[in-house]
Amino acid sequence: MPLVVMKFGGTSVDGIRRIRNVAAKVQVETSAGNNVIVVVSAMAGRTTELSETVGNISRMFDAREFDAVVSTGENVTAGLLALALQDLGVPARSWQGWQVPVRTNSAHGAARIENIRTESIVTKFAEGMKVAVVAGFQGITQDGRISTLGRGGSDTTAVAFAAAFAAERCDIYTDVSGVYTADPRLVSRARKLNRVSYEEMLEFASLGAKVLQTRSVELAMHNKVRLRVLSSFCDGPGTLVCEEEEIMEQRAVSGVASSRNEAKVTLISVADRPGIAAAVFGLLASADVNVDMIVQNISEEGRTDITFSCPVEHVSKAEIALNEVLESGAVRYRSIVADTEVCKLSVVGIGMRSQSGVAAKMFKALADDGINILVIATSEIKISVLVDRKYMELGVQALHDAFQLDRC
Amino acid sequence: MPLVVMKFGGTSVDGIRRIRNVAAKVQVETSAGNNVIVVVSAMAGRTTELSETVGNISRMFDAREFDAVVSTGENVTAGLLALALQDLGVPARSWQGWQVPVRTNSAHGAARIENIRTESIVTKFAEGMKVAVVAGFQGITQDGRISTLGRGGSDTTAVAFAAAFAAERCDIYTDVSGVYTADPRLVSRARKLNRVSYEEMLEFASLGAKVLQTRSVELAMHNKVRLRVLSSFCDGPGTLVCEEEEIMEQRAVSGVASSRNEAKVTLISVADRPGIAAAVFGLLASADVNVDMIVQNISEEGRTDITFSCPVEHVSKAEIALNEVLESGAVRYRSIVADTEVCKLSVVGIGMRSQSGVAAKMFKALADDGINILVIATSEIKISVLVDRKYMELGVQALHDAFQLDRC
Repeated sequence: MPLVVMKFGGTSVDGIRRIRNVAAKVQVETSAGNNVIVVVSAMAGRTTELSETVGNISRMFDAREFDAVVSTGENVTAGLLALALQDLGVPARSWQGWQVPVRTNSAHGAARIENIRTESIVTKFAEGMKVAVVAGFQGITQDGRISTLGRGGSDTTAVAFAAAFAAERCDIYTDVSGVYTADPRLVSRARKLNRVSYEEMLEFASLGAKVLQTRSVELAMHNKVRLRVLSSFCDGPGTLVCEEEEIMEQRAVSGVASSRNEAKVTLISVADRPGIAAAVFGLLASADVNVDMIVQNISEEGRTDITFSCPVEHVSKAEIALNEVLESGAVRYRSIVADTEVCKLSVVGIGMRSQSGVAAKMFKALADDGINILVIATSEIKISVLVDRKYMELGVQALHDAFQLDRC
Repeated sequence: MPLVVMKFGGTSVDGIRRIRNVAAKVQVETSAGNNVIVVVSAMAGRTTELSETVGNISRMFDAREFDAVVSTGENVTAGLLALALQDLGVPARSWQGWQVPVRTNSAHGAARIENIRTESIVTKFAEGMKVAVVAGFQGITQDGRISTLGRGGSDTTAVAFAAAFAAERCDIYTDVSGVYTADPRLVSRARKLNRVSYEEMLEFASLGAKVLQTRSVELAMHNKVRLRVLSSFCDGPGTLVCEEEEIMEQRAVSGVASSRNEAKVTLISVADRPGIAAAVFGLLASADVNVDMIVQNISEEGRTDITFSCPVEHVSKAEIALNEVLESGAVRYRSIVADTEVCKLSVVGIGMRSQSGVAAKMFKALADDGINILVIATSEIKISVLVDRKYMELGVQALHDAFQLDRC
């Protein structure tokens, strides 16, 4: 019997009425003759609430206990959804991570799935069960402790189950109806994409379009899992994330991504000798600063400026780390300049590989609206720029128009 | 190293401040050189909240899913207490029921503990861990599903751990400072008992003194676990529940118990032939009516009246069951009379075995205050009567005075 994986996020299971709604959506699949594995998140806000309680108990907490506590949110939802399905007459039961089991490494709080045992669920399907409800976001380590996968972990759980069970497809239900050409809150004419390639989705995900977590897209790409993003709250086919070859018409640009809370940090007049960049960014990595774009310019003789971007909330720990290294003498530079009032605009498209002139068109569109570009970075299928934050909405709109993304 | 089991109920762990308070109490024991197993309940109200959510999802719910959902409350508390202990520098970790594992039978919602594997906790103690925090109320069945032990299950968990690990003692921390000669809300001069025998405690527990659950007392008696009841919120030695031989001075009556919401149901003129009582009470048991006292009086020739008491909220299901059996012709009787305005008063004492006149003294005390006795039932160490509910407070006070329970 064909098997489908469905995943429902926190807002989709927030309260009894919504859980019943989810059960009804699952029943549509079982009525169509599919077996279903449903992966659920905790109810909206519950994971944050539990995390905060842990933080209030202990500042330097034991991540193993953190995981034991926060994983309970998904367990509640899994049990409730199994009950709601049974109430509709659909044979269902819940599985917690350790019951499957979902084996992970021991990186508590950000564990990676190592393998998923399929036997217990397969046996129940063979006995006539139609739906396995799995608590997302969690697993069990080699020494029997509960682990969690970190933010967005339930998406990863869903994709990993789809891969392990060779599911027909993996449907990620969320509170938006798919992947858009731009954030619809910024661009009223933003258009839902019917298909998007794994590579593009990876860029969108890493650029802050909060539809799917980067790790889950990587995992889907690696295992060729057909991923669909669709809405829990309204009907519609959503967006299919698939291989490039399945997308007929490849436009140069598929969408415009934007990320509001960026900061730009420049180290002025760094002694320019081999190993300096490695020293600086190794240090920032140890300080858990999430560095995104990196640009190095030549300035005076033998000295250079290094600029990087990071989330606004990482600036102070970056400055602390960089000051420490200056005092220790490991890296020399004249000063640090941080600009916390910038944002990132990116155009993404697999068609960019074969079509030229995308960068020029992008820069012209921004210049026409008087938007100054502070930093530029490019990849094979993406061009990103930092600009003043006040221009974010204007810039996204300008790029959306320039690449005519409102037209099919 | 000596091992102590401590158990903290829902009000004792309700919120971060109280969890820290519990951690401090546990630290007193570790500082005194003991290893500790702490059994915790869910935060006050959480189990009820989760139960109600399950009830709202599904009226006829799958008890296995119910257990998976409600057991999460204890898991949260266990993790948080382990963190609070670590924060005090006490080496601690949490165990969920399946991690120990605590094996139970498969009577979901009211499971019985079959055995507790001690290896994993013993190993950790050997490695220097001082405190094992165990989620109470839960276990795991033979086929790997989560089970819960039913109301008061955390007390039972604590006693079972004390027995399995041959602990020095088992301290049950609650919101009262021990076992009293009467409910202090009814009798201002009620006195805390220093010691009470298992048998007396069993009577108090089954009579509705909500200090300890009957099952946990039975288990303690059977395994000779030294049980202490004491307060989470104020210091003091509490009450020791122990063997009769450890209690020097045995008074005829140790305390007066009272139970407010009782009902009296009489089957009038039942055909008096062998097997009728068995049929009636077998039927009530199948209908989950919690029958307490049973009295049978001779009435007319060949016919009899049968009276029983039960909680007020069980009266309607008792009536439904008894009407069904009348219609089916299995048991004949003329009518049912239910009085839902009664309460139960009991005097309890192991000294009663060797001292006579207790019943006469009890009945006289009630009569002196004009309280009419509706039903009488006795056991070896207890005399119970049903009286009109309006006399409850007066009756408890009268009995407390008559047996001079305010005096040491």
